[in-house]
Amino acid sequence: MESITMMGSPKNVNESFLPNGTNGIKEDKTTIGILGSGDFAKSLTIRLIRCGYHVVIGSREPKCAADFFPHVVDVTHHEDAILKANIIFVAIHREHYSSLWDLKHLLSGKILVDVSNNMRVDQYPESNAEYLSSLLPDCYVVKGFNVVSAWTLQLGPKDASSQVYICSNNVQARHHVIELARQMNFIPIDMGTLSSSREIENLPLRLFTPWKGPVVIAISLATFFFVYSFIRDIIHPYFKNQQSDFYKIPIEIVNKTLPVVAITLLSLVYLAGLLAAAHQLYYGTKYRRFPPWLENWLQCRKQLGLLSFFFAVVHVVYSMCLPMRRSERYSFLNTAYQQVHGNVGNSWNEEEVWRVEMYISFGIMSLGLLSLLAVTSIPSVNSALNWREFSFIQSTLGYVALLISTFHVLIYGWKRAFEEEYYRFYTPPNFVLALILPTIVILGKIVLLCPCVSKKLRRIKRGWEKSHFKENPSSTAAHISPERVTVM
Amino acid sequence: MESITMMGSPKNVNESFLPNGTNGIKEDKTTIGILGSGDFAKSLTIRLIRCGYHVVIGSREPKCAADFFPHVVDVTHHEDAILKANIIFVAIHREHYSSLWDLKHLLSGKILVDVSNNMRVDQYPESNAEYLSSLLPDCYVVKGFNVVSAWTLQLGPKDASSQVYICSNNVQARHHVIELARQMNFIPIDMGTLSSSREIENLPLRLFTPWKGPVVIAISLATFFFVYSFIRDIIHPYFKNQQSDFYKIPIEIVNKTLPVVAITLLSLVYLAGLLAAAHQLYYGTKYRRFPPWLENWLQCRKQLGLLSFFFAVVHVVYSMCLPMRRSERYSFLNTAYQQVHGNVGNSWNEEEVWRVEMYISFGIMSLGLLSLLAVTSIPSVNSALNWREFSFIQSTLGYVALLISTFHVLIYGWKRAFEEEYYRFYTPPNFVLALILPTIVILGKIVLLCPCVSKKLRRIKRGWEKSHFKENPSSTAAHISPERVTVM
Amino acid sequence: MESITMMGSPKNVNESFLPNGTNGIKEDKTTIGILGSGDFAKSLTIRLIRCGYHVVIGSREPKCAADFFPHVVDVTHHEDAILKANIIFVAIHREHYSSLWDLKHLLSGKILVDVSNNMRVDQYPESNAEYLSSLLPDCYVVKGFNVVSAWTLQLGPKDASSQVYICSNNVQARHHVIELARQMNFIPIDMGTLSSSREIENLPLRLFTPWKGPVVIAISLATFFFVYSFIRDIIHPYFKNQQSDFYKIPIEIVNKTLPVVAITLLSLVYLAGLLAAAHQLYYGTKYRRFPPWLENWLQCRKQLGLLSFFFAVVHVVYSMCLPMRRSERYSFLNTAYQQVHGNVGNSWNEEEVWRVEMYISFGIMSLGLLSLLAVTSIPSVNSALNWREFSFIQSTLGYVALLISTFHVLIYGWKRAFEEEYYRFYTPPNFVLALILPTIVILGKIVLLCPCVSKKLRRIKRGWEKSHFKENPSSTAAHISPERVTVM
Repeated sequence: MESITMMGSPKNVNESFLPNGTNGIKEDKTTIGILGSGDFAKSLTIRLIRCGYHVVIGSREPKCAADFFPHVVDVTHHEDAILKANIIFVAIHREHYSSLWDLKHLLSGKILVDVSNNMRVDQYPESNAEYLSSLLPDCYVVKGFNVVSAWTLQLGPKDASSQVYICSNNVQARHHVIELARQMNFIPIDMGTLSSSREIENLPLRLFTPWKGPVVIAISLATFFFVYSFIRDIIHPYFKNQQSDFYKIPIEIVNKTLPVVAITLLSLVYLAGLLAAAHQLYYGTKYRRFPPWLENWLQCRKQLGLLSFFFAVVHVVYSMCLPMRRSERYSFLNTAYQQVHGNVGNSWNEEEVWRVEMYISFGIMSLGLLSLLAVTSIPSVNSALNWREFSFIQSTLGYVALLISTFHVLIYGWKRAFEEEYYRFYTPPNFVLALILPTIVILGKIVLLCPCVSKKLRRIKRGWEKSHFKENPSSTAAHISPERVTVM
Repeated sequence: MESITMMGSPKNVNESFLPNGTNGIKEDKTTIGILGSGDFAKSLTIRLIRCGYHVVIGSREPKCAADFFPHVVDVTHHEDAILKANIIFVAIHREHYSSLWDLKHLLSGKILVDVSNNMRVDQYPESNAEYLSSLLPDCYVVKGFNVVSAWTLQLGPKDASSQVYICSNNVQARHHVIELARQMNFIPIDMGTLSSSREIENLPLRLFTPWKGPVVIAISLATFFFVYSFIRDIIHPYFKNQQSDFYKIPIEIVNKTLPVVAITLLSLVYLAGLLAAAHQLYYGTKYRRFPPWLENWLQCRKQLGLLSFFFAVVHVVYSMCLPMRRSERYSFLNTAYQQVHGNVGNSWNEEEVWRVEMYISFGIMSLGLLSLLAVTSIPSVNSALNWREFSFIQSTLGYVALLISTFHVLIYGWKRAFEEEYYRFYTPPNFVLALILPTIVILGKIVLLCPCVSKKLRRIKRGWEKSHFKENPSSTAAHISPERVTVM
Repeated sequence: MESITMMGSPKNVNESFLPNGTNGIKEDKTTIGILGSGDFAKSLTIRLIRCGYHVVIGSREPKCAADFFPHVVDVTHHEDAILKANIIFVAIHREHYSSLWDLKHLLSGKILVDVSNNMRVDQYPESNAEYLSSLLPDCYVVKGFNVVSAWTLQLGPKDASSQVYICSNNVQARHHVIELARQMNFIPIDMGTLSSSREIENLPLRLFTPWKGPVVIAISLATFFFVYSFIRDIIHPYFKNQQSDFYKIPIEIVNKTLPVVAITLLSLVYLAGLLAAAHQLYYGTKYRRFPPWLENWLQCRKQLGLLSFFFAVVHVVYSMCLPMRRSERYSFLNTAYQQVHGNVGNSWNEEEVWRVEMYISFGIMSLGLLSLLAVTSIPSVNSALNWREFSFIQSTLGYVALLISTFHVLIYGWKRAFEEEYYRFYTPPNFVLALILPTIVILGKIVLLCPCVSKKLRRIKRGWEKSHFKENPSSTAAHISPERVTVM
């Protein structure tokens, strides 16, 4: 037993915490304590009772609180509740943790489950659970259950969202609470030591954090290109020829905006990688940290790529709906009328035919490749791939998709980039703007693929350092200080 | 060791069950016992032998059974097999469990793995494993391996479907069987105590249980609206003008049916939530249980939503295929002919153009939002979201999708809802019926968003109770009796 | 404690390996040893330091290596490093393992983590970890961390791809390394005993292994049918009528190729199952192994099905883009012109209208079914289904999809299969070739559904054996020898 005791527990965790169904005797039901009498405490009580536990509530005003709880529950004073149970849920606010200091002697050796949440990400310098643990060093503090809502506790059937993240410095205490979570019909996820508690406390506060930057970029780009097209394609003909094309706003202008945003976002994905490679080449080492903006950019590549795919798909849907429009029908009928009246037997234009066939063809190809990239971003598909497969799809196929989409835009533009009539208000057409970033990325990639550059880069990625033979290695070691908190 | 013994085991589980490869001596191979000589026993034997175990079969007629098993297997009597192994698979039918009563003294302290399945969901009052455990209280009964078929046991490579669910009241015995499952190349899922065995036994019997209700509703709605459209759009012109439009059945009538079903299903998703909120407001508490029909409805919202998405996508595909049809082509050519003959230089109808552009535009937008909802329903994507993110997508975006689809239908209808010619056979057009439920849901949501109502609802969701200060709290406590079995 | 000791460990694993945050005293930091001073060792060091560990590097030339590591790291001789740590990462090549033999006495009782990878799948007769374990039988060898790249170790945030697979014969050592992995912000996957190490070592070397066969088949079929269509639809009219239809290559010819490949691949999925059933019926047992080619074929059915779905979706996208083409527009306008000039008031062709409506309708239906099959292939959706549900979707719905796609092709072909003009260069049209395999599969399935055949097959699948009563059972037992390695 001694070796287990050495895991940081001043004394052994009592093993009789969990109910034991082998003999089925009702008297054996385990008692779980809950300190606090709020809504979460009540919901927790309901779930625990359903799963066959005795619950004892520790409240500052047990008489008032008793009405609030089911009558099978023992509502009593803090001291009494602590005495009656070995696993105790701390369902009180962090501000009141200090009041537990007076009960220190009673709590010693008990498992305390910290279920608290904060109002903001990183609200306090240390996580609630670590603070509780520092207050009561003789207790086994376990963080958990904070990601479930009171609502889920009462009603929720078992599904993927009923995962609970659990961590503790004491391995035995953690395993007990994991076992308890399992019996309460949750899916426990072991998160290791209490140092994960900050991350666990931040989890329910997150609201698409990694998506915010990419979504802002996508919306800004979309707004810009929408206004740009609106001015060029609606305002310009209106001013020049009094031509009212406002009906084009809902579909045509939107459909000119979407592909430009899609290809720009896709270029941004790969531009980040190029800049990272340039950084490594410049400093001659892979151990020097990227500047924060680049690190953030590198970390939101997946989101940029998925947004690019989303915009591309919506562009495809819009394009495929074009022939359904009434405006298309009318303009078609009018063209037919004119053709008949102009007595043009054959309006076939071979160049125009080829342009559109190639344009559509390249569009479908790049959509197919992008959809492979998107499918491998589904977490369970992703985790079934190893690093080689993932990098083949995300890097090699991704570059091919970017190349093909660039051709798609080039063929769309055709010779129009060189015709003056397309430079309305002296602005270049959309497709010219759409080509800027992809061209830069493709040229950059070609440079990296040059034998001399790629050889050097490969050497750096294997750990070679230019500075190693020149300067003091401590300069590169600076960035690996233990203070660095991994962003989840 | 004492504390571990307290986990409900009268004596210690022998730890030498699993084969130990450190020294690689062949004589050390662990012996696994199997009681029963049927097909499952044989398949289990094959897998165990492949994974390096000795297998001893306990059969009532060992001589007959021996022919059936590979010759490296020791086929013997029940008593002998039990003596030779510490982990014993019970591969016999529940009806014969009572025959093990006579072997009680031999089985004491052994790990018994119950692999049995039933023919129907909840066939017996207690699960097979719990029954076995009550028969043989001195054994460590572990439930498991019932979800794998004999076929998978023999051939199946490691994939997602080779998960086995394992539960037992004895933690050590459970961990031994989990370890064994891992060595047999299965992915073990720890399901906690033996009380999960009912759920585990019901798992392989389930056939889309949560899908049944929603699918029946969707098919009924689809049938009704198909017949309704058929009568209005095929039968009516046939009777009235002898016009034969039967060619419209495969695509046009179907494509009139699909969107109505899609929007009705989407409304049903949110109607359930509205009714739940109304229930809570009426009773002034969130602790009062919903009536069973509402609870079932609430629990199949995900399925209703996914079916709605499926119908919406098929509707989009049908719509996008409309211009490909030969009928479209002919009617187009004929219109062109008439326009030329009528000498109409410009058939442009600005109102009609705007209607269709807006209609398509809103349709694509709501499809985009619905597809986000559908993607977040993929289990692994779902489990990567926290509660706030999930509720933002499923509730906020979902309502926006419903609102936009309602606009989509309204614009489709345009002024036609007020034209008598569309009320064939005195029935309202499809799109009028399609609007009923969404309108109710949107109005209901607006009521809930009123400051006075939403404030009260928020208070209730935080645990406030109207009844708390008026009536006896025992009335609300009634629904949290421990008898409630959580539906998986 | 004795029982745990029996798990195959000559003596107890010291439990004080992991850092203990309860008291937060910095002096308590655990020391991890690393043997080797390459890039992986450095990256590992950086991650360990960040997670709060002391690291001691064992190098053959500690003075040279010291410059390469951050200065907080203790770089020393092998012997010294081994003495200072209880968990030791072996970051040296397999070829140098034998040099550890001399340090045997120092390494005894330590946990050695083998992180090595090979250059090829199954490069050595035994896995690196098993070789290390046989070299040093007194150590607890744990395999792990080989799937993470040096890159991930340094920068990678926590995501699905940061899973590490861990296995060891000593359960306690394995749990220690699992705990360590968790603290290093990886997601550890327990893979059981060291016999899994071969599999774990092959994991990062895999490059879409199960996809290779199906992709080669798909590409070969696509190439064949592309050339076939090219010759029939481009070369033939060019030779015969000097008609230049080369503009059809990018879209029309491709779109004639895709559906044929899609339906052929789908037929191949079900043909494998039919052949397996025929094999079982012929030999009268399910215990006889299939020939290797059939077993491989059976195991890549999922990939064949997904490729079939991919081709089908691309075919749909191409088809829906057809009306967007300029060529369609021109030919349409020319037809309108001719209709007006020919004075054809109504070009309606009822048969042609019905053919295309039915053709599109069946196409959409089979796409809908195929997409259900594809969705259930997403790993997390798949693992949420039980065997009955999976086989209902993959088998029943799959056959229905095949049947409907066959109708789709039949209706496309219509009477043209019997018109001589479609047999250009004496070759049958594409759709005739497309029908061959599906017809064979559907007929085969009908035979299997005959009561007499299906009854016998059901009996065989339940374990009945024809040979059992005739020949020596050892002939069938031959294939279940323990040597068989399960293919992952």
